[in-house]
This record gives sequence, structure tokens and C-alpha cells, in this order.
Amino acid sequence: MADLTETETNHAGFIAVHVGAGLQSEARLPRYQETIKRACLQGIRVLNNGKNASEAACIAVAVLEDCPLTNAGMGSNLTLDGNVECDASIMDEESYGAIGAVSGIKNPITLAWALLHTQKQGLMEGGRIPPCFLVGDGAKQWAQQNGLPLIDNQQMKTENSTFMFEKYKRKLDENTSESTKKMKTDDVNDTKRLDTVGAIVIDRNGNVAAAASSGGILLKHSGRVGHSAMFGCGCWAERKDDSCSIAVASSGTGEFLMKSLFSKSISDACIIDDLTPETVRNHINNIFLNRRMTPTNAEKYFGFILLKLITNENQNRLVEFLCAHNTQTMFVGYMNTHQSKVTTLFSKLHSDDSLSINIDSIPLT
Amino acid sequence: MADLTETETNHAGFIAVHVGAGLQSEARLPRYQETIKRACLQGIRVLNNGKNASEAACIAVAVLEDCPLTNAGMGSNLTLDGNVECDASIMDEESYGAIGAVSGIKNPITLAWALLHTQKQGLMEGGRIPPCFLVGDGAKQWAQQNGLPLIDNQQMKTENSTFMFEKYKRKLDENTSESTKKMKTDDVNDTKRLDTVGAIVIDRNGNVAAAASSGGILLKHSGRVGHSAMFGCGCWAERKDDSCSIAVASSGTGEFLMKSLFSKSISDACIIDDLTPETVRNHINNIFLNRRMTPTNAEKYFGFILLKLITNENQNRLVEFLCAHNTQTMFVGYMNTHQSKVTTLFSKLHSDDSLSINIDSIPLT
Repeated sequence: MADLTETETNHAGFIAVHVGAGLQSEARLPRYQETIKRACLQGIRVLNNGKNASEAACIAVAVLEDCPLTNAGMGSNLTLDGNVECDASIMDEESYGAIGAVSGIKNPITLAWALLHTQKQGLMEGGRIPPCFLVGDGAKQWAQQNGLPLIDNQQMKTENSTFMFEKYKRKLDENTSESTKKMKTDDVNDTKRLDTVGAIVIDRNGNVAAAASSGGILLKHSGRVGHSAMFGCGCWAERKDDSCSIAVASSGTGEFLMKSLFSKSISDACIIDDLTPETVRNHINNIFLNRRMTPTNAEKYFGFILLKLITNENQNRLVEFLCAHNTQTMFVGYMNTHQSKVTTLFSKLHSDDSLSINIDSIPLT
Repeated sequence: MADLTETETNHAGFIAVHVGAGLQSEARLPRYQETIKRACLQGIRVLNNGKNASEAACIAVAVLEDCPLTNAGMGSNLTLDGNVECDASIMDEESYGAIGAVSGIKNPITLAWALLHTQKQGLMEGGRIPPCFLVGDGAKQWAQQNGLPLIDNQQMKTENSTFMFEKYKRKLDENTSESTKKMKTDDVNDTKRLDTVGAIVIDRNGNVAAAASSGGILLKHSGRVGHSAMFGCGCWAERKDDSCSIAVASSGTGEFLMKSLFSKSISDACIIDDLTPETVRNHINNIFLNRRMTPTNAEKYFGFILLKLITNENQNRLVEFLCAHNTQTMFVGYMNTHQSKVTTLFSKLHSDDSLSINIDSIPLT
């Protein structure tokens, strides 16, 4: 990686992370907050060492994966078979790498990043095109061949993820055997633990990247791949032109986010308009909530963080940061390389509104 | 499925299929042509029995998969490990189903269709959302649990697919062990057998669907998922409004098609403009050939079939059919339910052009 030149080192970088849209319990907030801060600080340290946006996004997401409270990496929701199968993806302005339904990798995002990085090295022997998306055992095999550390998949389970699995698997089995007996609504909500994680980054050269990682829905079928692995769905990063770049990381009901190409669609919409609560609300309705392919009778949960880097004619840089969700809570943090402290935001849905929309502007020069 | 009403039975349906963009050898043309005709006729029979667009697309693609010459289903390219791992997806106006890197399923498209169909039945027990994308062993397990026939994966190999694998695996091994020795260019081209298959359909109620199926790149890494499985990439089907619907199925260099969300992007572009060789050429350049995320030094192959159903104020229906590619050849067929014969088109790239664009208009009422 090229070192930063002297003129470039004056530019600030920026990072934002989230630990998912869902219903984070009050008791866990201190641990979430500590994790968010650590993820931001480690990402910023990487940027200050002259690394690029995708490297910082990867490092930050790996910190979030390592937190046993998040539904990503260790502590992920278990499948119907009681296993951990992870999805992750990362994107920058040049490429994209993703893995789906992968077991035995401690940090799924590092494998996605390795695929992104490998593609930038050009074609493989025999003129073959390097893969951008690997799934299942083949992905694990590729990781091993490329020197990434493997882990016994049992070690990816936590006491809590095993408890949740056993509780809801038992309820499901009872439910299936006695078809008249339904799960209670609060139980159903409990199974919708959407605490997937993500990061969006601007490096000090002004390049953007985004990353997402998820353990998927509790009691998902083995082999199910959700939006976090899918191109355009879990994350998006794009330089529109010299004056505007954008990056997004999303969380929520995977199948529905996927069918609306959520991260790309919200990016396409927000890159055109000024970010106001009204424009954002309209975009979310058009792209997701009222979309034909998302069934009208199903609960459609989402949450996302988005950054828009705007450079004016004097080369002054401004970041517009947006966090929006329709879940009860969403916990995010952000900072730039010129700051010493992480700004954290624990966003709650107000009882009189169906959406929470938070917008902040941060000068980067 | 609802029976067609008397007034509706007067409306014609339409189907188009392709057996991939690539370099189809002259000796095989009669077998390709026979397969294309049979796929169209079976799709049309399904439509005439009152079935919907996705069912007809599935049946037609299954016929194409069963042809040992195509790189889909039986006869698919083998992975670096010498296995068959298939990708397939299907989309209609309501939903989407896909599978990736799946072994041991005779007709991958039927598994993708089963996922599409299952999603339309609503939520599963316990309020769980049915999966839209399954990969690897988990997908095979789901197929078995849902009564789809499995097949010994060895039976998916043909004499030719095994011959090609052994030939190029040997060359690759020689190439790797003696790094100065490069594969010849014509060998490299040979490994780029892009004969994935697809279908686009309008049923007699005016609903559209699209489907794609592929064995992927020869000598791909196990677990590699290509564009044929990815939402927005291998196929696209959408009703824009009461006067316009669109469906697309694409073939080509998977990783690059994926990173341009090829089928959705070409659909979005073509739904706005009138289809002329000039507009189509511009769209392909913008979406794919000149896109930042497709490397400038790599060969970017594509081919697609697209239909646009236009209904005027007198309820007269017109299908605009488009076939475009930058490979040496592309072989397609199409017909409507009021016709008795399939129109086949073996499209060749002219030596003085980098693209072949074929447009036809077919009245449907």
C-alpha cells in the first residue's frame, strides 16, 4: 500500500460503525458502547497508519464480530441444526468480496476482505478470474489455502447463543407437533435478533468502503444466505464523482432487504437529494416499506448507517452522516481521525413515529 | 393456481430462451437448435395449460439444463476439485428464489423455483421468514426435506465435461509448476465456456418471469457462486406499471456481471428508452464495459435476452425482444402461444463490430 504523501496527511478520515438494528436491552448497553468505541478507535488507528478504507472497515467489523453480544462472528445465532454459519461482505470503490454460510472462521469479515484484496491482484494462473463470492465448505477451504486461521466451529458458540437456540428450538418443535399452539408474539420478536454489524469508512485519501457481517436469523435453515453477503444489499460504497462519494451498511430482515437491494438503492436515492428527514423517509418508503416484492403483511425491519462525503470547489470536505431505523433501537458510533473521542448514539424509536432518522454533519478538513 | 378466465385465454403468452453467449461450434448447432426448440415448446405448453410465467420459465430452463452440451445442470463445468456445483435463480413480479454452489440436484432451477414458490406461501412455523437463497449442502438438505429428487453427483458429469476438466487441470498444474510456461491464449478462451442458460416468459395474464442456470467457470474454486445465483445479476423480471413489464436473462463473465448488477441495470436502462441499437449500445457501455468496478485490462464477456411487454391504451400488447452479446456467438429461440413454430436465431459477431444487437417486435394480441 502506498504511504500517504505529506500533502495528503492533512486530510482527515472518518469511520462509523453499528451493532445492529433491533431491541438492545438496557443491561447490555455499556458493553455495546465499549465495543463500538473500540471498533472506531481501532479503525481510526489503521487509517492513521496510512491504510486504506477497506482495511479500516475490516478491522472495525472484526472488533464487532469478536463481541459475544453481537449476531456476527462469535456469538452468532445458531441454525436449525445448531451450527454457526456466517455471512459477510466488504466493498470499496474498486471491488467487492463476500462469503456466505461459512463455518469455522473466527472473523468472517477478514475472509471477505481477503477475497476483495485478491481480486485487486489481477487474474490467477491460466487467466482465471478470482472469485468474489465464496460459500460454505469451499469458502473455508479457500481460507485455509490462503493462510487464514481456522477455528473449531464449537468455539463460535456462546452460552447465550446456545441458550437462545435451545429455547426457541424447543418452542418450534412443540409448535410443529401441536399445530394449534402458536408461539407467543414476544417470543417471535425475540427470535428476530437483528444485531448484525457494519462499518463505513473514508480513508485519508478520500476513498470510501463499507462492510457488513451477520450470523443470520435464529433457526435459519442451514445454507441460508442473507443480505449481509449479497452484492448491493448488506453494504455499498461508491465514488459518484470528484465531489461526492457514499457508503452504506444495513441491518434488518434479510430476505426483504435483499429483494430491495437495500444498500445500493438507498445509496442511489440519497446521492441525489440533500439529506433531510423528509427525503430519507420518502426513500425508505419507496425502496423498502412499500416495495412490491416485500409482502404487505410481514414485519419489515431495517436499520442503516450512511455517509456522504461532499467536497466543495475549495477542496473542503464535509461528511453527512445518517442513521435511520424502524426497530426499537439502533446503537452506532462515529469519529474522524482529527478527533480523540468517539461519538456514540443510542437511537430509540419514539412512540409517536414509525421511523427514527438521525442526521449529523462533520467537517473533515 | 387460478384457471384462466374466458376473456383471458385470448391473450397470448411468450417465451424466449438462450443457451449462452460464447463460441458455439458449428458441429453442435443442430443439437443446440433442437434443445432450444424443445425448451420453447415445453414452456409454451405449460402456458397453454394455464400455468404462470415462473412455471414456464422453470420448465424451459430444466430442458436446457438436461442438454449435456450446455454449461448448466448435467454437463456443467467441473470445479478445481473435479465436482459439479450449480448456480440457478428465478424471479417473477412477486418473489425470487436462488441456489448457489449446489451438488446432487439434477435440475437446479427446480430447486430455485421451489424456494420462490415456498416464499409465496407466507411465513413458516414460529413466524420465521422462508429463505430465498440457499447454498451448498444446506440447499441439498432443503431439497431432500421438500421432496425434490436427488442424484448422485457423479451422474452430473459427462464424458465431455470430464475431458475438458482433465485437459485444463493438467495444463494449469503444468503452468503452476513451471511458472514461465503460460497457457496459450486459445486454451484460455476454451476455458471460458460461458454456455449458461436462461429463459424469459410472459404468461397469458401478462405476468413476467426470468430464470438463469449455470455450472460456472471451468476450474472454479469450490464454493464459488457466480452471477446466475445473484439477485439482480443473472435474471430480472419486473412490472414497471400497467403499460410496461420487462424480463432479462444474462450470461457471460460472472464476477463482472455481478459487480454491475447486470440484469437489473440493463432492465432499468431499457425500460425507459425505446430499444434501438444505439440506445442499447450506450447502456451496455455505461453499465458494463466502461464500469469502474470491471477492470480495464480484463476480457468482459456478456450476452443477454430481454423482453419488454408494452400494452397500449386499447389493450393491444407488443413484445419487443432484444438479444445482444459481445461473444463470438449466441444462440436463442422464441415464440408466442399463438404460433406453432419456434423462431431460432444463431447470432454471430460481425468482424467489424464489437457488439451484436438483434431487436424484433412481436404483437401478442
